[in-house]
Amino acid sequence: MNRFFLIVFLLITSTFASAECLVRGTGDLAVIIERATGSVQVVDTTQKKSLFHIAGLGDLSHASVVYSRDARYAYIFGRDGGLSKIDILCGTLVKRIVQGGNSIGGAISQDGKLIAVSNYEPGGVKVFSAYDLSLVVDVQSTVVDGSKRSKTVGLVDAPGHRFVFSLYDTGEIWVLDLSNGQLDLQKYPNIGKQPYDGLITPEGRYYIAGLFGEDGLAKLDLWHTEKGVARIMDHYGKGEQKLPVFKMPHLEGWAMAGNTAFLPAVGHHEVLAVDSLSWQEKARVKVHGQPVFVMARPDGRQIWVNFAFPNNDTVQVIDTETLQIVKTFTLGKGVLHMEFSPRGEEVWISVRDKDQVVVIDTDTLVQTAELPVT
Amino acid sequence: MNRFFLIVFLLITSTFASAECLVRGTGDLAVIIERATGSVQVVDTTQKKSLFHIAGLGDLSHASVVYSRDARYAYIFGRDGGLSKIDILCGTLVKRIVQGGNSIGGAISQDGKLIAVSNYEPGGVKVFSAYDLSLVVDVQSTVVDGSKRSKTVGLVDAPGHRFVFSLYDTGEIWVLDLSNGQLDLQKYPNIGKQPYDGLITPEGRYYIAGLFGEDGLAKLDLWHTEKGVARIMDHYGKGEQKLPVFKMPHLEGWAMAGNTAFLPAVGHHEVLAVDSLSWQEKARVKVHGQPVFVMARPDGRQIWVNFAFPNNDTVQVIDTETLQIVKTFTLGKGVLHMEFSPRGEEVWISVRDKDQVVVIDTDTLVQTAELPVT
Repeated sequence: MNRFFLIVFLLITSTFASAECLVRGTGDLAVIIERATGSVQVVDTTQKKSLFHIAGLGDLSHASVVYSRDARYAYIFGRDGGLSKIDILCGTLVKRIVQGGNSIGGAISQDGKLIAVSNYEPGGVKVFSAYDLSLVVDVQSTVVDGSKRSKTVGLVDAPGHRFVFSLYDTGEIWVLDLSNGQLDLQKYPNIGKQPYDGLITPEGRYYIAGLFGEDGLAKLDLWHTEKGVARIMDHYGKGEQKLPVFKMPHLEGWAMAGNTAFLPAVGHHEVLAVDSLSWQEKARVKVHGQPVFVMARPDGRQIWVNFAFPNNDTVQVIDTETLQIVKTFTLGKGVLHMEFSPRGEEVWISVRDKDQVVVIDTDTLVQTAELPVT
Repeated sequence: MNRFFLIVFLLITSTFASAECLVRGTGDLAVIIERATGSVQVVDTTQKKSLFHIAGLGDLSHASVVYSRDARYAYIFGRDGGLSKIDILCGTLVKRIVQGGNSIGGAISQDGKLIAVSNYEPGGVKVFSAYDLSLVVDVQSTVVDGSKRSKTVGLVDAPGHRFVFSLYDTGEIWVLDLSNGQLDLQKYPNIGKQPYDGLITPEGRYYIAGLFGEDGLAKLDLWHTEKGVARIMDHYGKGEQKLPVFKMPHLEGWAMAGNTAFLPAVGHHEVLAVDSLSWQEKARVKVHGQPVFVMARPDGRQIWVNFAFPNNDTVQVIDTETLQIVKTFTLGKGVLHMEFSPRGEEVWISVRDKDQVVVIDTDTLVQTAELPVT
């Protein structure tokens, strides 16, 4: 029962076929990652049914997904360094390579032509052709002790055909600019101890790295990289009391609603509301457990939160105006991931120990469907 | 030479076929409206080539388009009251109805199940099934003089399965809520003289109507409809000097970049920068002519502006930080419409009198392609 379903929506009528390719729009298709079996399901989010099952994708623990510019293909980044390109209209594995030994996270360039993967081992970021997964650039990270190179984490794609990522062991942020067929690499050292994850704000302007080795966050303004990295939220982190932290919250789990950023407190049963202009804390909302993902409904009116063990059977909904909890769901053990439909009318939530993905209407807060996941 | 190309992008690899349906993603497809011939082209925005030409759509002057939830179908709203559903994977007209005598604008519900059209004559909004274009609801507007009903304008779709629109002759805003199969109609009278257009802010919270009969704008907070309509920007409009106005600017042409709204001045050769929280004017940018569309690149760093006759051969680009004009393009007479690719790396611009759509790289500001439009 150690499954992890990652649901990822495309911004994309419905025809079904099992052994041939589909003629259909790709705007309402999604991919669900089946962690235990190393497979994915392609689902129709309108009809709420499974279209294809694609196996043989390797270790998909902590996997992630990006979609091609035309939304026909999904690129699956596996923990084992596997990079798989799947065809979601034909239900086939187009190509799979093992590009590293231990990987976490991937990204796609603004023009859709390049796929980047960040690797723990060997440390660095490799960039591939989105078309055939051929290697374009191998960016090796800083050497730590003569042979080993720094792990890379927090890889994101940014406007201007850029990839931004952090170096865990050496405390750096690197900006890789591949526009116009050139390679430009900018390095920002001394950003803080052990950056463990990164996020990019929704408009693509700010890159923010979380620090495992100390409190505070490192912020880089991608409109003004010449100004270097600034420290924000000095008290964000484990703090002096060193509370037990069951899981470091994902930075991708931050939510922006208007000028307020909502983010998971580390160790505390709280969601922090922070002014996204001044990065000053405005309020704290008491919640059911240690938050993992803190996600805004696309219209910014609700924040949905899931929690670390032992409270991972629960999802709470916060009203962004009143900061009150308006609903608490108990869905079953192992609520690991949530994803909104593009226009926010539904949220899809994985419940690991029930082998299910449930669909909830975000207006009525009533469950409308459930899909079995093998 | 009286053509108008409206380019609309989907948030959607490339296979070509002329007489059969395509198996391909729909994420990078777009529709170009050919006003003079009452036809549309379906184009591949990655390969920058035409896939299909679909004719017989009636009067497409001032036409608009919305896409189905799955991004396979486009709904074309014609000036002659025609509503056409086209299949962009097969290049076919699925169904066409003439639902009114004189229409302007349409919208699609949050769940993708309903299509709404606003009509001048007969005045009102009709709602149709997105599946087969069967009539679901006919919302008749307020009677003006015993028989004629008010024109409806500024129709938008909003979160919560709502449609919002304005009544030109009677000065009202109506909110039509069709969630859960119920019909709820809220009416806000006395919002100002002759609302001529409307917009909804990107997150879907505020509906703003422009007033032709007086200065100022009417704003409705859709999170708090109980508070009614408020007036903002009292000096926005034609003003006391009654400058010649060659074309009332489109409100859909407003741009939001961070907390600044950029909007076309009426009559003046200026773009206004307004604080979107207080709705107080912050600055004015002198531009080449009377602005028509003022559009933000998706990352909010640039504002692209086109102009009314006699300056409609020009496009200017404003830097949102410095408020300086960074580029002036002279593209040919009749620059009528601009549309960004979803991630903003390109802008597609129609040049009526050259029978062209040109594609410009928004980073290098260099033209990269042009497509003939018949």
